Order: sequence, then C-alpha cells, then structure tokens
Amino acid sequence: MINVRKLIFCLTIAGSLTNTLSAQVTNVERVNPIIGTNGMGHTFPGACVPFGLVQLSPDTDTIPHNVDGKYQARVYEYCAGYQHKDSTIVGFSHTHFSGTGHSDLGDILIMPTTGELRLNPGTMTDPDHGYRSRFSHDTEISRPGYYEVMLADYGVKAQLTATKRAGVHKYTYPKETNQRILLDLIHGIYNYDGKVLWASIRVENDTLLTGYRITNGWARTNYTYFAVSFSKPIKNYGFEEKGEVKYSGFYRKFDQKHNFPEIGGRRIVAYFDFDPNASADLEIKVALSGVSSAGAVMNLQAETAGKSFDELAVAANKDWSDALALIDAKGTDDQLAMLYTSLYHTMINPSIYTDVDGQYRGVDQNIHQAKDFTNYTVFSVWDTYRSLHPLFNIINRQVNTDIVNSMMKHGEQSVHKALPVWSHMANENWCMIGYHSVSVLADAIAKGLPINKKEALKAMVNSSTIPYYEGTGEYMKLGYVPIERSGSSASLTLEYAYDDWTIYKTAQSAGNTETAATYKKRANSFKNIFDTKLGIARPRYTNGEWKENFDVMSTHGQGFIEGNALNYSLYVPHDVNSLIELTGGDKVFVNRLDSLFDMHLPDEFFAHTEDVTKEGLLGGYVHGNEPSHHVAFLYAWTSAPWKTQYWQREIMNRMYKNNIDGLCGNDDCGQMSAWYILSAMGFYPVCPGTNQYVLGAPYLPYMKVQLENGNSLTIKADKVSDKNRYVKAVKLNGKPYTKGYITQEDIMNGGILEFTMSSKPNKQRVFKGTDRPYSLSEE
Amino acid sequence: MINVRKLIFCLTIAGSLTNTLSAQVTNVERVNPIIGTNGMGHTFPGACVPFGLVQLSPDTDTIPHNVDGKYQARVYEYCAGYQHKDSTIVGFSHTHFSGTGHSDLGDILIMPTTGELRLNPGTMTDPDHGYRSRFSHDTEISRPGYYEVMLADYGVKAQLTATKRAGVHKYTYPKETNQRILLDLIHGIYNYDGKVLWASIRVENDTLLTGYRITNGWARTNYTYFAVSFSKPIKNYGFEEKGEVKYSGFYRKFDQKHNFPEIGGRRIVAYFDFDPNASADLEIKVALSGVSSAGAVMNLQAETAGKSFDELAVAANKDWSDALALIDAKGTDDQLAMLYTSLYHTMINPSIYTDVDGQYRGVDQNIHQAKDFTNYTVFSVWDTYRSLHPLFNIINRQVNTDIVNSMMKHGEQSVHKALPVWSHMANENWCMIGYHSVSVLADAIAKGLPINKKEALKAMVNSSTIPYYEGTGEYMKLGYVPIERSGSSASLTLEYAYDDWTIYKTAQSAGNTETAATYKKRANSFKNIFDTKLGIARPRYTNGEWKENFDVMSTHGQGFIEGNALNYSLYVPHDVNSLIELTGGDKVFVNRLDSLFDMHLPDEFFAHTEDVTKEGLLGGYVHGNEPSHHVAFLYAWTSAPWKTQYWQREIMNRMYKNNIDGLCGNDDCGQMSAWYILSAMGFYPVCPGTNQYVLGAPYLPYMKVQLENGNSLTIKADKVSDKNRYVKAVKLNGKPYTKGYITQEDIMNGGILEFTMSSKPNKQRVFKGTDRPYSLSEE
Repeated sequence: MINVRKLIFCLTIAGSLTNTLSAQVTNVERVNPIIGTNGMGHTFPGACVPFGLVQLSPDTDTIPHNVDGKYQARVYEYCAGYQHKDSTIVGFSHTHFSGTGHSDLGDILIMPTTGELRLNPGTMTDPDHGYRSRFSHDTEISRPGYYEVMLADYGVKAQLTATKRAGVHKYTYPKETNQRILLDLIHGIYNYDGKVLWASIRVENDTLLTGYRITNGWARTNYTYFAVSFSKPIKNYGFEEKGEVKYSGFYRKFDQKHNFPEIGGRRIVAYFDFDPNASADLEIKVALSGVSSAGAVMNLQAETAGKSFDELAVAANKDWSDALALIDAKGTDDQLAMLYTSLYHTMINPSIYTDVDGQYRGVDQNIHQAKDFTNYTVFSVWDTYRSLHPLFNIINRQVNTDIVNSMMKHGEQSVHKALPVWSHMANENWCMIGYHSVSVLADAIAKGLPINKKEALKAMVNSSTIPYYEGTGEYMKLGYVPIERSGSSASLTLEYAYDDWTIYKTAQSAGNTETAATYKKRANSFKNIFDTKLGIARPRYTNGEWKENFDVMSTHGQGFIEGNALNYSLYVPHDVNSLIELTGGDKVFVNRLDSLFDMHLPDEFFAHTEDVTKEGLLGGYVHGNEPSHHVAFLYAWTSAPWKTQYWQREIMNRMYKNNIDGLCGNDDCGQMSAWYILSAMGFYPVCPGTNQYVLGAPYLPYMKVQLENGNSLTIKADKVSDKNRYVKAVKLNGKPYTKGYITQEDIMNGGILEFTMSSKPNKQRVFKGTDRPYSLSEE
Repeated sequence: MINVRKLIFCLTIAGSLTNTLSAQVTNVERVNPIIGTNGMGHTFPGACVPFGLVQLSPDTDTIPHNVDGKYQARVYEYCAGYQHKDSTIVGFSHTHFSGTGHSDLGDILIMPTTGELRLNPGTMTDPDHGYRSRFSHDTEISRPGYYEVMLADYGVKAQLTATKRAGVHKYTYPKETNQRILLDLIHGIYNYDGKVLWASIRVENDTLLTGYRITNGWARTNYTYFAVSFSKPIKNYGFEEKGEVKYSGFYRKFDQKHNFPEIGGRRIVAYFDFDPNASADLEIKVALSGVSSAGAVMNLQAETAGKSFDELAVAANKDWSDALALIDAKGTDDQLAMLYTSLYHTMINPSIYTDVDGQYRGVDQNIHQAKDFTNYTVFSVWDTYRSLHPLFNIINRQVNTDIVNSMMKHGEQSVHKALPVWSHMANENWCMIGYHSVSVLADAIAKGLPINKKEALKAMVNSSTIPYYEGTGEYMKLGYVPIERSGSSASLTLEYAYDDWTIYKTAQSAGNTETAATYKKRANSFKNIFDTKLGIARPRYTNGEWKENFDVMSTHGQGFIEGNALNYSLYVPHDVNSLIELTGGDKVFVNRLDSLFDMHLPDEFFAHTEDVTKEGLLGGYVHGNEPSHHVAFLYAWTSAPWKTQYWQREIMNRMYKNNIDGLCGNDDCGQMSAWYILSAMGFYPVCPGTNQYVLGAPYLPYMKVQLENGNSLTIKADKVSDKNRYVKAVKLNGKPYTKGYITQEDIMNGGILEFTMSSKPNKQRVFKGTDRPYSLSEE
C-alpha cells in the first residue's frame, strides 16, 4: 500500500496526474499535508486522526520564544514545529496546532538514536553535537494519519500514526547498532527557559512509563499527562536534569540517574535503551490525557491494546477515509488536492479534550465529567467563527454540537463566565479580540443544532457584559470603544456590534424580548464609529471626537488589528445595507470594493505584517488574515453581484496552491481551508447567525456534499473554468432560483444546486427585496 | 469562656495550680500547646482538631532553606514555623508538621493588615518595612483548637480555630482604619526561591476565592488547593508577582493587577480590602484539599457552611474534649499538663488527607476514591513505629486501621511498591532509614486490627526487597549492609533485621511458611554485624572485614545515624536474649546499660547534633532521638528489672517539662509524646509486632484508659512518687501478676492494673521463663 501511495503522492506533488486517473485515487490519497508547511501556513506534516487530541509530528527546530527576556522573532516560523526548508529533525512530539498564528504545545518529544548518548538537541547549524538528525524530503511520506521519514544520521526509519488520544511510533534501527529512545520533556514549541514548571516520569514496569508535565506558556498552565508503552522491554535507562536542582530532599540516598523508576524535575531528558538482538524494530504507543496519568493509561488501553503499528495505521487511514467521504468532487488533481487537503485541515482543530471515560480538565482546572457530550479544545474563535463552524453546521453537525456544548461548559467554568476567546487545553489565552463564541452559538442555533437556547443566551449575555474585558465597559457606556482604552478600538467596536447582533437573534429565538431589544440596540453600535464624511470606520476618543492623523491604509496604530481601516470598514456583516449607506451609497460602495481589489501597493507595504505572505494580497485585499474573508461576497447586496464571481475565483486561484508554500497566511485551525471549501461550493456565510449563505460561483464542475441527515447536496457547474467563471443562472432542484443566497434549509433538504456558467457576467442578475441577503436595517 | 480559660491558662503556665482545683479543670484546659515551641521541640501553638488536615498557626519567621544554593542552618529552628523567642508574626499559615526534624508546608499564609499596602514580609530585625507585626506573648492564648494574639503593629486581634479540613480566622480591626487581608502564596516553611512551581487564585465572587499552589520542597510536588470565604464582600483587590514573568501570553489586554479575578504566577502575594464601616471584624474560612479546588469548596461547605467563628471554636473544643477523654488521670498540674499535652501532640500527625467525599491524591499523583477507609498522610515512620502506632493500637484503633490502610494504598500506588518511609501530602521524601511501615502493619495485625493479612504481607515483602533501596540489595546478598554502600550501614542492618522479624511474624500469622522461613533468617542478620570481641555492633566492609578506626562514642562516620555505636548496639528489640549473649552475658549487659545512663560526657559532646538539646541526654543515653527509646526497658530481660523503674522516671522528670523548652528534642509527630504516655502507664512496647508491653513503673497514682471496645483499663499506683518509684508487686484485676509484661489482650479486656510502690527496689522481682518478655531465640 505504501509503495503505491508513494508513487501517487509524488505524482500528485508534481501536479501531473491526469483526470483519467481520478477514479482510482481515493480522497485520502488526494490529501497533501505538505501544503502550507513552509513559510506562513503553519501546518504540520505528521500523523493524526480527525479531531484527535494527538498530532504526532516531526519538529524541525526549537527556536525559543525568548532568550534572556528578549523575544526571538523567528519563533513565529515554528508555530507548528516544522518548516519544510529545514534539513534536520529534532524529534517527534505529540501535540501541534494546525495553522495558528501564535503557538504552544510540542509536548512529549520522542527521538530514536544510536551510538553515543547525547541528551541535548543540538542546533540546526551544528546537528552533530546534539541528538537531532539530518533528513531528506525524498524519504518523507506524509498522508492523513501516517508519516514516515529516514533519520539519516542514525539510519533509523521512523514511521508514525495515531489514534484519537495516542501517537504510535515504529522505529526500525540498522543492524549492529544500539537502540535508544530519548524522551525530552524540555522540548516544546514557543519554548523558553522555565516554561516547564514540572515534569515527571514513572517507569511502571519494563514496558510502561507514565508521567506528566506542566507548562506555563501560551496556556498559562497546561497539564499533559502521558502513558508510554514499548513493544519490547527496557534494558537500561536514566535521565539528566538540566535545570538547577535547588532542593533534592533525601533523594541523595539513591542513584537516581540510572534505573531509578521515579524521575522528576524542571528540565529533564530521559533515555531508554533496548536490546537490538530482540528485534530490529521498536513500536511505541504514547497516549495523552489532560486529566491524569491514570487517564492516559486508560486511553492507551482503550485505543491501542493488542493492536500493532500496522493495524493502527490502517485504522487511521480508515478514519480519514470516512471523514473525507463527506465530499465527492471532480476537478484537476491540483484542485482536488487543494480541496481534500482543505477538508483535512478543517478536521484537526478543534480537538477532543476528554478521556475515553468522559473526564476532562476544565478551564477552572478542576476535573469534570462530560455528560452527553464530548469535550473539545483549541478554539481560535476570532478566526473560525467565520467559516469553520458554519461549514461544520453543514457537514459535521454532531462535532459542532459537541463544540458548542464544550464552549458553554467553558463559559460556566470560567471565573469571568466568559465563553472562549482563544482557548486551548483548559486555558484561555485571550488572543485576538471580540467575544465571537456568541456567533458560534447563535449560528448553531440558527442552523438547528440541538442547543439549549436559554443556557446559550445566558452564556452569551455573560460574555458580552464583562466590564473589564477589553473595552467592553466603555463600549456599553459610550456605544463604542474609545481609542484611549485600546489600540484596536475601532475593530473592537465593529466586532462587538456584530457579536451583539448574534445575541439579539438568539434572544429573539429564545423568546426573550427584553434582552433582544438591548442587543438590537448594541448591534447598531457600528454606526457610532462611521465617519460618514469619509465613508470609513474611524476611531473616536472618549470625548466623542474622531481620531486625528488618521491613515486608512496603515495597519499600525490606527485603531484596527490585523487589517487597516480600508478593509475593516467593510466589516458590518449583519447590516450590509446600512454599511452601503454609511459608505456613501451603492456606487461609492461598489467602487470601494473594486478599488480594494484593484489597487497597486508597493511590495514593501505589508513587509511588517508577520503572518501574511505577499501572495496573500490582492491589491489592498488581505486574504492571509481573516477580517476580509467575507468581502468578496458583499457585491451580492449591490448592483454588481457578478463581481463576487470574478474575485472569488481569483482569490482561490492565487492564494491556494498545491505546494509547500500553498497557503498565503496561517491556516488558523482550518479557517482558511473552510473558506476555500465553502467558496468552492459557490456560497459563503457572510453573516453567521442568519440561515443564509450568500451565492457566488462554484469552483468545480461537480461537488456532492453528504449530510448527516442522509440527504446530499449536489452542486453542478458543468463548464466552469477560469474563463467561464460567471454565473448566468441558477436552478435548485430543477427550478429557477433567483435569490442571492441559499438557506440552511435548502442545503439540509438536499438535492441539486445547478449553476449555468458563462464567460460573461450576467449583469441583470441583481438581488432585490427578499432576494437580497439579510440586513438588520431591513427587519 | 475565654476569660475563665485565660485565667486558668496563666495559672497552669505558672505551675501553681493546686491539686484541689483539678476537678474543675477539663482535660482540654490541661493542654499547654506552648510546650516545645522554643528550641528543638518544633511544636506549634496554633489551632487544629484531632488528626485534621489543617493546622492553622502563626509563623514567626521564614528563614529560607537555602539562599543562592547555600544551606541556611537556622531554617532548622523553623520546622513548625514558630519559635517562642521571636517577637514578630509574619502571618497565619494553614499547614504545619508537629515536631518534625526536617520540614515543609506553611501553605496559604493569611495576614490582616491596615495602613499602607506592604506586600513583602519584612525581616525580624526590620519589621516596619514589611507586613509582619510585632506581638507580645501576654496577648497570646493557645489551647487545643484555638489560638489568639494581638498584632501590635496593627491593633488587630487575631483569633484562629479549625475544623478537620478548614482553618477559621476572625480578625477584629481597630476603629477608623482600613481593613486588609494579605494572601501570601510565596510564604512557606523550608522555603527557597523557586519552591513554588505555580500558584493560582480565582476570585469566584465577592466573598469566595479558590486556588492552589504547587511546591517542590521536601515533598517533591505538593498540590495544595484551597477555598476561602469571607464574612463580608471584598471591596477591592489586587496582587503583585514578585517572580519574573517571562511569558505573559495575551494578558496584556487586561489590567491584571487590580480587580482581575484570575490571578496566577510563580511568586504572588494578593491583597483584599474590606469595608471598615460594615463591621469591625472579618471572619475567614479557608478549606484545603489535596485533590482540587472543587474539593476544597466541597470541604468548605461540608464543614463550615452557616457556622460562625464562635460556633466552630466551640466545636473544635468539643472535638478535643472527646479525644482527650480517652485518658483520665490524677497528678500534679505540671504532670497533667505534660500528660494531656502529650496526648494532644499524638493526635495532630498523621493527618487526614481525604476530601469529605473520600477522594484523595495518591503518591502516584492520581486521584483515588477511598473505599471503606479514610486516607491519612504525614508518616514519620522511623520515629512513630516505636510508640505512636502501638499507642494508637490501644486508644485510637480505628484511626490506626485507617492509617495502615492508607500505608498499604501508598504501597500499591508507589512505583517502587514501597510502603511509606517518610511520606507526606502524596509524596515520599525518603527521610531516615529502614522500611518500618512493616512494623506498623505487623503490630496492627498482632494487636487484632482488621487488616487484610495477605495484602499486608505482600506489601511488606515488596518494601523489603527493593534492590536499589538504601543497601537492601547488598543486605539480601551479604546478610548486612556494607559500609561502602551507606554511611548508616550498621544502623541499617540492625533496623532491617528487626523489620524482617515483623515480616516473619506476619507471614507466620498469614500461614505463609515459606516467606516466614525466609524472613526468620533475615531477622537474625543483626548477628552478622556484632563484633563479639567488643560486644558491640560494628560496621563491616563488603569483604567481611570489620570497619577500622572504629569509635563507639562518635555519632559521625561510624556507620550509625542519629545515635552512636553504644546506643545502637542495644537495638535488637526482637531478640534481647541474643543481644545479651552477644554483648557478653547478663552481667556485662546490665553494666553496659548502667554505664550508658551513668557516664559523664563533656558538655560539648553533642554540640553538633542539631536536633537534641543538652537536656536530652542522660549520661550517654539520648532521649531526644529515637533509637534508644526502648533502652530503659531492656532491664526486664536481665537480673535487674528494677533499674527500668529508676531510669524511666528519671527520663520523664528530666526530659519532659511544662514550659516552652519542655521537649528535649523534636516531638517527631508525637513519638516523644507517645513514649511519655505509655511510660506513664507503666509499660512500653519494646518490640512492636509482639502483643507484649514490657512493664516498668507507672508515673502517676491513677490513670484510666478508655478503650474503643467499651472496656477501660485503670492503672493504680497509690503512693507513687519520685521517692516511691519502685514496684514492689503487681496485681491484675486483683490477682498477683508476675510477668515482666502485659499483653494486648490484658489491656483490651480492661480492668485494674495495680502497682504497689516502694521506696526500695524489689530485687527479687526478676522475670524468668515465660514471665520474661519475648525473644526470637526462645521460640
């Protein structure tokens, strides 16, 4: 199987596979996890299963987050532990974010070595003085649930696979060498000296380790418990404490460093030697738990007991095969590689964070029992509320129900009673802005997931009324966040207004008219910072005056974050009609959109934006960051909806490529990928919380989306191409369809959504009245 | 109540209360917790209830364990956080060992302050620059379950009481000052910079905090969770992080330092301000848990909800009243103060370490559910196997059953499968030598506690066969621990031999003849290191040769620990007959004992022994450390049993005093106190694991011991006095009793044990045949 796959993989990479072969290539084989592993994509090539707790992947370096208190900018490259350009592998760690723009994790690193004992990782430029190994991409195989590489310095073949809660290793050593495993509990992503608060290893018996480490990183206190089983007995073991042991108690009575089964410290690296005569290979299973080492042992037994590496690799492949069967599609190999890799990337984060018995660590650091749901973590909500959760509401509704319940439990357990902002491993890191979990909850309710509306509304109100949360107190008082309070004040006001709209809709849905009225008013707050003279959102001071020395192009110090005023002034997803008015009417607005896409910016303009590549720009439109993700679809409200069809395809062609640099910015836990999938379907959820998806144009001639209710939606666009990118007409189940959007109900009912494509825009196809997508001002 | 008590307390201290008042003084009032709080006693004056998890007590200083890697000898004075000679109080922390010779804890310090905010404790010599306060002993009241002091610098009256799992504070502030509480999560006993791995506080609402801290001290990783409730709302709060914040994540978006409810860090001190107009006093309840902060909240609710400080103080008094009712006695006030204070000191450690729902943290750091037992911790086993657990087998059998079950669970959960050596708060600190938990188990079984013999034997065998444990591997091979392996080799061999005898007896009792035979042989190992030429135990090298340059008096480098060869050569509790033979026969042996008590040593001889005062010496006999605790009773096997009666009273008179320096060495979790109580009864368990208590002479004219089976044992010695210290004859329940020991059965059957006392020894009362206490060689 591997050999066939390897061939296909190489061909796929080369992009030379013809459509005729498509039928033989499975969806799993279409996935190219290498996409985005260089530069800014921040994806990883290692092994995981859908939504698993474990992402077992090679780390090519360990640039520390800071050294002697100084921030090291290059750490940013290593958000997922891997940069394709690198030539050495430090080892294989068990937890990785997919595509984030800040980072953490890289827990529990294992590295097979031979020869003399080296317990430090060495450096990229001087690998020989450390335990890391050189490698060649020629020896790498990366596919969903499986990773393989030859560690050149040791001649050890490394194979990795995973279950939901365990990483599974198989190392084949060369003949006539010693066989060693290092377990490095110092290693981590976004590491720094002192990040590990404590680490512990117990050698329970000659084939089982348990232990844990606690880190103080992006997650303030991340408890990673583990259980490690070996396929043959440990012969000999020991460890080194690289930190200062200030207080050793009475451990001096033992030789702790050798074959002493209770290892603990702040900075420990352990080694385990195995008998080379027993077998050439060594299999290792590493289960994780956020609860306890007993939980890790339980997870290990439940998911891996009695199963060989090969069996588990086949099972991982099967998991992905099932998950990727949700979409059937036709297209070029590059298009399909991009589509299925995107689908793959939407199913890594969020990740389950529950032991097999339902116990999990809450954000209050207490252990809870999940009742009737599976607890998830890794919520990059500012990114993912836009497309990822809406996509889940079509194809992964059970998962999203669990996610919403997890978010609500997080809200209950939070001392702030706040829903997740950016949360992982039972911690809130508060990254980025807004309280967008309210959007995730509202969209889930609008899309018919079985969520307790009353509880959801309570959590949403709590999250939006925390007076000390970034400018919320001032916002509630003034109707906007003043620039004195926050450097992101204008972005905050815009995003709070949208978030409040989702609370308004949920209150309405829950029959709570009082709360609905309050939040309907708050939802109009965007108007408070629109300078209608400029037709632009503009920060204000507490005294009501507009910010002076205002630069609509700059991304720095203007009251916006990850976007400039030009982009952010298009962010009123819940009331585009009002937005058009505030901007200056249809003509001005269309012109604003056109010029955004068309403008010419000097190359160095975004040189200081660390997480977007040059390819992530289309004129002044920034796709590598999220605030503009809905912008191409705003034409639907204007006199020129056909322009969406043009720019949408342009973005897809230019900014998603089947290669290592194929993502133009951080994938952000699948948000960039979810955008691609929805856009490829021909519609996009501009305003999550409505039941509407705004129509653009499909990217592929054929897509069939399997729904959990047993129905399926087929999207046809027979002659679609870069030339035939325009929509002439649409039919739903054979009947002409004139609306500018389709609804959740249309999708869930299934059937055929058929687009007649053309090389010329249909300028008559303009959406008016109820055909035009939702705007609050039209209620 | 307090005023009456205060009067009695002062009178008791002065020792001037006459016997005629005795009837009016309760046992609780007899207790003088100030005994041993100066110098080497290492007791504390604060509030606790019997066997409680919480010991809420003032800490008078915080000498660090080390500074810049250099050990600070003075830390030793602060094992219990308090030295009576000090003039300032740093604050009130919630966990304290009672009488240990090494230390830890001092967790969760609270200090009430007024005036300007100071977040550092200041120093003894410069209290004004810190938050600590001066105090006068005149304002101190210390009794079981209650402590009171006036904090002079603030004019705040502090009152403390406790429940099993909670400390309860009441602070009365002067008029017209602000009211503040500090919560110092850096403070600790045997502290050092970096001991706190992490600390966290959540301000759940305006009257409830939760949190935890993890320390790396004598306990490698000690998790102390807490819940704090205030009797009135917090007005304002904040904290300071005194450690380096290397990585703050995105917390920069908040003003974390003020009124931000999620506080975390390595070195944090928080403050809480209260409204002085609401009331002059503030009550605080602080519950602890080793499991979780949810567990702490549960404990708080279960033990304190709805109860005022005064009610809880009355309840604590009642708990002690019940506990101290186990013994009724007559004597002088000083004698009774010593007796009841000793009884009090036997019921502090071990301490419960289970939440009210039965959950507890195991030594594997997993959370376990206790089934059919209460989990205990703080096992100073090298000390307490001698008298404390045997005493429990008379008066606290249910507690000791729980303790034994806790020890067995510890053994199961230990990666070494080792029973506790010196264990506290789910950690093994390995302090001192031997595997004496086997003695605790064996004695419990011999005394009829309902222990699973088979499981116990398994745990005992496991504990005694760990090849890497201090010299055990060599001991199993050679029959002794060679001096190359350990500086305590001779002590080890003697103690292993006794421990192995307890395993032999347990195997016999469990019907396992094979194991019994193995351990009977091991129990004779003491013979392997007796140099019969000297009649002294003497270390040997691996090659079998005796240690050269051997000094029987030195306590350093001679193969013994906390005792010299002269004392340790008397340590064969399970085969005194053989010991007498090895020493040179009865005459030589009696002479050896006589000379030990009689010899004159220069004052400076024990100057370097840090935990024994000069008063702890009687000739060459050292009572302040434990290895000789049984020695005075060895005369029972000789031709001169009456000498026990002389020296026993001499030890009691000289080494136990009703004052701050009243203990001649560390109380060691009640071992010194248990010795006193048993000795006062007139008998002593020389060899725990037999059912025998070797007879000496009672100390008091009357003692009545209440037993859990409803029976009681009355010990009468009508005319006993320093002059009439000799036993002429003994009657048990009216019948002449000629044995040199009484048995557990005699005690449990209850009745009257009556000693006829005399000013002259009855030299005819010598014990022969079955009247002589147990020796292995006579089996």
